[in-house]
Amino acid sequence: MKSRQLTDLGQQLRVDSVRAAAAAGSGHPTSSMSAADLMAVLLAHHLRYDFDRPAHPGNDRFVLSKGHASPLLYATYKAAGAINETELMTFRKLGSRLEGHPTPRRLPWVETATGSLGQGLPVGVGIALSGKRLDRVGYRVWVLCGDSEMAEGSVWEAAEHAGHEHLDNLTAIVDVNRLGQRGPTRHGHSLDAYARRFQAFGWHTIEVDGHDVDAVDRAYGEAVSTIGQPTAIIARTLKGKGVEAAQDREGLHGKPLPDPDEAIAELGGIRDIRVEVQPPPAARMLHAVRAGHLELPRFELGDRVATRDAFGQALAALGAARGDVVALDGEVSDSTRSEFFAKEHPDRFFECYIAEQQLVAAAVGLAARGWVPYASTFAAFFTRAHDFIRMASISGSGINLVGSHAGVAIGQDGPSQMGLEDLAMFRALQDSTVLYPCDANQTAHLVAAMAGCEGIRYLRTSRGASPVIYGPNEDFPIGGSKVLRVSAQDRLTIVAAGVTVNEALAAADLLDREGIPVQVIDLYSVKPVDRGTLRDAAEHTGCLLTVEDHREEGGLGDAVLDAFLDGRPTPRLVRLAVRTMPGSASPEEQLHAAGIDRESIAVSAKLLVDQAVVR
Amino acid sequence: MKSRQLTDLGQQLRVDSVRAAAAAGSGHPTSSMSAADLMAVLLAHHLRYDFDRPAHPGNDRFVLSKGHASPLLYATYKAAGAINETELMTFRKLGSRLEGHPTPRRLPWVETATGSLGQGLPVGVGIALSGKRLDRVGYRVWVLCGDSEMAEGSVWEAAEHAGHEHLDNLTAIVDVNRLGQRGPTRHGHSLDAYARRFQAFGWHTIEVDGHDVDAVDRAYGEAVSTIGQPTAIIARTLKGKGVEAAQDREGLHGKPLPDPDEAIAELGGIRDIRVEVQPPPAARMLHAVRAGHLELPRFELGDRVATRDAFGQALAALGAARGDVVALDGEVSDSTRSEFFAKEHPDRFFECYIAEQQLVAAAVGLAARGWVPYASTFAAFFTRAHDFIRMASISGSGINLVGSHAGVAIGQDGPSQMGLEDLAMFRALQDSTVLYPCDANQTAHLVAAMAGCEGIRYLRTSRGASPVIYGPNEDFPIGGSKVLRVSAQDRLTIVAAGVTVNEALAAADLLDREGIPVQVIDLYSVKPVDRGTLRDAAEHTGCLLTVEDHREEGGLGDAVLDAFLDGRPTPRLVRLAVRTMPGSASPEEQLHAAGIDRESIAVSAKLLVDQAVVR
Repeated sequence: MKSRQLTDLGQQLRVDSVRAAAAAGSGHPTSSMSAADLMAVLLAHHLRYDFDRPAHPGNDRFVLSKGHASPLLYATYKAAGAINETELMTFRKLGSRLEGHPTPRRLPWVETATGSLGQGLPVGVGIALSGKRLDRVGYRVWVLCGDSEMAEGSVWEAAEHAGHEHLDNLTAIVDVNRLGQRGPTRHGHSLDAYARRFQAFGWHTIEVDGHDVDAVDRAYGEAVSTIGQPTAIIARTLKGKGVEAAQDREGLHGKPLPDPDEAIAELGGIRDIRVEVQPPPAARMLHAVRAGHLELPRFELGDRVATRDAFGQALAALGAARGDVVALDGEVSDSTRSEFFAKEHPDRFFECYIAEQQLVAAAVGLAARGWVPYASTFAAFFTRAHDFIRMASISGSGINLVGSHAGVAIGQDGPSQMGLEDLAMFRALQDSTVLYPCDANQTAHLVAAMAGCEGIRYLRTSRGASPVIYGPNEDFPIGGSKVLRVSAQDRLTIVAAGVTVNEALAAADLLDREGIPVQVIDLYSVKPVDRGTLRDAAEHTGCLLTVEDHREEGGLGDAVLDAFLDGRPTPRLVRLAVRTMPGSASPEEQLHAAGIDRESIAVSAKLLVDQAVVR
Repeated sequence: MKSRQLTDLGQQLRVDSVRAAAAAGSGHPTSSMSAADLMAVLLAHHLRYDFDRPAHPGNDRFVLSKGHASPLLYATYKAAGAINETELMTFRKLGSRLEGHPTPRRLPWVETATGSLGQGLPVGVGIALSGKRLDRVGYRVWVLCGDSEMAEGSVWEAAEHAGHEHLDNLTAIVDVNRLGQRGPTRHGHSLDAYARRFQAFGWHTIEVDGHDVDAVDRAYGEAVSTIGQPTAIIARTLKGKGVEAAQDREGLHGKPLPDPDEAIAELGGIRDIRVEVQPPPAARMLHAVRAGHLELPRFELGDRVATRDAFGQALAALGAARGDVVALDGEVSDSTRSEFFAKEHPDRFFECYIAEQQLVAAAVGLAARGWVPYASTFAAFFTRAHDFIRMASISGSGINLVGSHAGVAIGQDGPSQMGLEDLAMFRALQDSTVLYPCDANQTAHLVAAMAGCEGIRYLRTSRGASPVIYGPNEDFPIGGSKVLRVSAQDRLTIVAAGVTVNEALAAADLLDREGIPVQVIDLYSVKPVDRGTLRDAAEHTGCLLTVEDHREEGGLGDAVLDAFLDGRPTPRLVRLAVRTMPGSASPEEQLHAAGIDRESIAVSAKLLVDQAVVR
């Protein structure tokens, strides 16, 4: 296209953004208008994309990190012929694919859900890593960022990761429109402030007038031809560009323009330019699943093995059987044991260093390219990435997260290292799967099984060794549980998972010696929960005692209750959990101090059984 | 001290670190040894601190961001005479103040809990902000960082904040020992890599040999005399310095030295140098609570007011009454309405831009200096700071967090902006307070009351206007609830909070017309929960229906169950909550689609009442 046409296309994107927001009665037209020329040039001259085949392996990947500029994205889709006028006007309405912030759940051209700022670039890094190190396809990754979101630390985790990995297939386009939601940004129109920061992290930078289509065109060309470094294009723009009443003015963030008709006239009226987007080059995916026979590690009954060790070995085995499995770790692979995978499959292992947001974002990016990622760090440190996990859930991203060093059972390191809120965090996500194995064979089976679940899957592992109580051929369906002790005389049911299973079994022995037989359930699938078995147990004993190495809110005890919250009569239930702030102590002392060891379980059980209501 | 004495002191700190870890059988001596000379020079020549009076307003503040190097911290306390030999040897043992990672819950000289990396510098920024803008006392803030933690984005949020605020009272000391937990760091001994990054964010930097005590001494002097910029001292060090078997070697992170006795001999044996630490200059706190009469805003019954508006007005009023109240926001003060406070008390308002980790960390730092911070952003975006909130809870920090735009009721913006997991996140914290008001007068009272709670307090506000249903003189104790409808004939109890209270009242009207009287409870205090009222309701109606604009896990429904989990017979309970992934739609459509609007409540109630078991 000629410059004039590009400028016209930019105006069309503005007009369509204004129209969509006006029809919706809400939305972010001014944030769209600043980046309209940047998008016009990208679409017309640089993006290689087949909108009819969004899964085409050769397609470039575009991520709208400033997700609130969704009117611009949808206007661009319209210019590319991917959606029509009628659909554009459904923006933000019930049932529309065109949500306030774009999600891949609804739109096939969206790589990842955005709208929580500072996440698009980190996920873009994951996609670019895939292109560079796994797919080996020459697609480019383009990420349109806002200037406000440069304040998020996650952007600099991403910058560090991309710079270190020399991701020259990645271009960040920073739309420096000077105005955030509340008012001016920290750095206003100082392009140099942003450029200095990117340069410090090893990026090539280009400063440009974001409304000069020729300059933008040249900048994209320079980005494409830059070797060995990612490129950041720092573009000076005006929020609300092109409409006098809005341009560069405060107080108009996230609102339709006051007079849309006048604005459209000022922008030159409605146009219908249709862009023939460059098709991607022929390409094919390398990971067309090389599925082999899965030989999970087998552990001997009675041996003592940490579930984190079993995880590492199982993941390495899974990696041998499946060519699409990749692993990432936050610089603690010697602790989480993902190092076993790293040693056997170094080409599919990604060291993310101590940057848990980038760890999860990279996993989301890799999953977007069809890989099956397992990302691991301490359970406690996944809280660092909570917002990324939340957004991954909104994306419907299929990622496996494995948190080690769960609970007070880690011992001396103290509360900063203890995952005590992780079950609550992961359970509260839409359609998540939460697994907490107690022995090595169970762990190995669950590591393989979780790959087949939808959405976010979480596996919680333990630091210390525990006895192998299941044979290597036992089955552990997701959503199942294991009844480990049962008799017709049971007076109550102890429900445990992970490190407390062994304590529950020992407590059952203690109680048995005192003539109090109890049922014991291993609830390894915390979500979905085995409603049938729990309801049978409630019927059988009338009283459940749950024991967990986790805060009392949102963990195992609450998961058990999920089986009864449909209006049916509820059994009596007592929840043993971590109620105080632990300090340093040995693992055994910690379990005792928290009141979740065998003695505490036995004492609680006796108290409950003594109460008249229990038969 | 002379150079030789400083060097000796460094060796003593190493020896004591080795001894403490050896006695504990765990810990991080090698990470302590790299920074021993840095600490020796700081303690002997630059820190101004009265260990007998840790609350002295003139004291410098020291933060051990690399919290795992706690043996070094405790060795330093011993050298300063704050703890003795016997206590040093209790390191990491049950009941000891000397935990694996230091916490202010147990030690008066610790400003903030560390151990989750990348948090010490952000909190240090908060303390330095207090010194610069509020206390107006000339103390310095010293933060000892590891090199591995430079990968955390939060470090660069902090660097940005400190650079922008020209915090020349802040010095970051980066212990570049080249080795992380698993192995080499990204940048190894490239001091320049770190210096470039800090410089880009506006810091003065000094590169130094961290084992050359004279050079370190000069660097501290230069930091102290640098005006208008924070300083980063980038120190080249060796992990395990001074012991051949450990020095600069991989595989020794987080472990006692293999042969402690030999190591101690190699380090020159046990010493007992006692440092006379410089006292702080005379100083007094400015915020000696200027407590005035609190005039909360008053809202008229029947008016429609958003609880976020009530929050903003109440906070401004609280700020007028109390000189120790400060506010912070993540660049959305026009949405959260903390702008009302910002306008009335600009000197006590801190704009943190879109950096939620730094937002919470700054609040923790301000709280450490005795201020009463209120930090606000969207409820959804507090998930970004989950790990910081978790660590603040471990610190026992008294911070108020206010999350707006809760739930699907925000409408068109879609799921990325909806706080749907926030109640689960905040409830799972030790000793947290979780409040969710439904009307403006209730909000105003809770905003004032939360300042008096221990630990983390969370207030959830709503975007849309809702009717004022309580008079301005009504009382709303923390841990209470309001019974809004009750009669002897009630067939069940609806428990609601926030936006669902109005829906519950409307449902009660619908049901009443059909001859089904129901009780309605406003459970504004989600944690602690009003056990008495809930138990009475269970007794009264036998069946509870909870309705919440939140995921079903960890929110209001689970909070209600907390009243019954002591083994007592449990009422039948049904939980209405957000079970699907919302898209864009109007607030009313969203509530309906999620099944938490008046019609859905009424339908569910009728189903339950029809079931035979309900009387």
